[in-house]
Amino acid sequence: MRRMNRTPLLAALSLLSLTTPLSAQTATPAPTPAPAPGEIVAAAPATDWIAIAPADLLVMDLAPDARGRARRVIIQLMPAPFSQGWVGNIRTLAAAHWWDGTSVNRVQDNYVVQWGDATEAKALPEGLRVVPESEYANAARLISVRWPRDSSLYWEVGASSDAYTGWNGSGFINGWPMAGQIVAPSSRRMQQPTALQWPVHCYGMVGVGRNLSPDTGTGAELYTVIGHAPRHLDRNIALVGRVIEGIEHLSSLPRGTEALGFYATAEERTSITSVRIATDLPTADQPRFQYLSTESETFARYAEARANRRDPFFNVPAGGADICNIPVPVRRVT
Amino acid sequence: MRRMNRTPLLAALSLLSLTTPLSAQTATPAPTPAPAPGEIVAAAPATDWIAIAPADLLVMDLAPDARGRARRVIIQLMPAPFSQGWVGNIRTLAAAHWWDGTSVNRVQDNYVVQWGDATEAKALPEGLRVVPESEYANAARLISVRWPRDSSLYWEVGASSDAYTGWNGSGFINGWPMAGQIVAPSSRRMQQPTALQWPVHCYGMVGVGRNLSPDTGTGAELYTVIGHAPRHLDRNIALVGRVIEGIEHLSSLPRGTEALGFYATAEERTSITSVRIATDLPTADQPRFQYLSTESETFARYAEARANRRDPFFNVPAGGADICNIPVPVRRVT
Repeated sequence: MRRMNRTPLLAALSLLSLTTPLSAQTATPAPTPAPAPGEIVAAAPATDWIAIAPADLLVMDLAPDARGRARRVIIQLMPAPFSQGWVGNIRTLAAAHWWDGTSVNRVQDNYVVQWGDATEAKALPEGLRVVPESEYANAARLISVRWPRDSSLYWEVGASSDAYTGWNGSGFINGWPMAGQIVAPSSRRMQQPTALQWPVHCYGMVGVGRNLSPDTGTGAELYTVIGHAPRHLDRNIALVGRVIEGIEHLSSLPRGTEALGFYATAEERTSITSVRIATDLPTADQPRFQYLSTESETFARYAEARANRRDPFFNVPAGGADICNIPVPVRRVT
Repeated sequence: MRRMNRTPLLAALSLLSLTTPLSAQTATPAPTPAPAPGEIVAAAPATDWIAIAPADLLVMDLAPDARGRARRVIIQLMPAPFSQGWVGNIRTLAAAHWWDGTSVNRVQDNYVVQWGDATEAKALPEGLRVVPESEYANAARLISVRWPRDSSLYWEVGASSDAYTGWNGSGFINGWPMAGQIVAPSSRRMQQPTALQWPVHCYGMVGVGRNLSPDTGTGAELYTVIGHAPRHLDRNIALVGRVIEGIEHLSSLPRGTEALGFYATAEERTSITSVRIATDLPTADQPRFQYLSTESETFARYAEARANRRDPFFNVPAGGADICNIPVPVRRVT
């Protein structure tokens, strides 16, 4: 029982990854440990990082918490050609300051946080579009997919492992997780396969609440995923963006006790003080972010390492990863 | 723009499912809508529900919240033959009241909540076992899997959709999500295929913190999953149970701001007042639960419906579901 010392707090730390090999304590030279996914990302050249335009950032300020601390949530809006009808509506709503004074009304554990106008009495601004259902699944028709140089890496990580598209696949397009029907290159010379694509409901993705079909929602009622990816919502609800900072201000809110996680009383709701497109904020207050190019070699190595952890904590590489377990790295630029 | 009325709050409700068909307002008879997964479960015969022995329930009481409300978390321990070395240690630790006065020390968004002794100074009780790594993946060797009557349903939902086992599969054994290498029946007469199996890291599963290999942890340091299933931890850490009630008391805790979500200060930790096996509580205080037999016809239909939502809210059935999106129904018995 000599080895039966209690697990130190280090055990907790090592749940994710450690970089010090056990063999460092031996006399023989230590083999270089395989890098953890985060280490691969940290070593990316600057050219692998792509700036996110402030015009594509939605900045949501919640009322300060009980201890007076600010709570800011930053959402990256989905780029063209995906979901642009709803994204346009969201820009209109933000320009009208429509969400100011609304609230977070629903927090359902392992599912979603939802916000909007709980009173159902607030008039919508002029100019919102009615977006057809066809825009859920195929807002872009025959979009070119940039195929990675080594095509076995990230598309196949998804393609061989995605539960939701059968023989089809999932992968990344311009920094976003997508599923679709992929037409693979028929020869080495054909580097640009075509595909029908739709965004997927990974943790932190932001979608549009709606009523029964044929309603598709305006964009005034939004939610974000705070649990295991609810992929059954793919192609059934519009996805319009993702939380890239501050999701903890939503995911750690008390769960609502009514059906579907709605709050039982108005007092439980969290007030939204302001929602703006970042370019409408004072210049000094405009946040700047970058994402790791999903077409970069660094991303390919990162995705492969997420699927096959070989850093020192791990004994058995998984041999695969679902697309929502390969979150696209995003970083704040100061 | 006449149809451009704002989305009612109903839109939020309908994110999950609604049972009133749109056609109910028309003169023609409404077709019966396909049942939602929850409706299938609600209609299960009593014989499909299996009692969970109070001896397999770990009852963890946290200190009351800021408003004085009790916070109880109930964990179902994993049954034999899986992870029983660690489960035995957990029983020893609970019998020794070892966790009383310890705390929740780590809350990492979209990952885990972890609890144990933050001081790293508390002596462990006598009699804890050192469990070998071989128990992660194959605590049971050649366990019989009860094959469903219609074998295409839930094992195949997993088998065709699981990202983490290649040509192998995932499915359910005695109410638990498992992955493994499955040896399928070679004929219709062979109803009991054999398999090597391991439990998977779905939302709410409880595991054992450890240090680097060959350490496997004692069970004194525990965590639960509060985000997208971190399946890369499968076969790398022991899974010993799952939270079946009260996970919101853990998942809604403030996220820690130190590395890996550890709290920066002792004041941020949540105190654990008591952890007991339910049979050590006063009889009137012993919770009673049942789970839906994963070998039942009801479960097969429920799993199929999770993979192919046809209830009124949905336009496009997904055609598949990963195993962590088919949570095993558990209910409290009063």
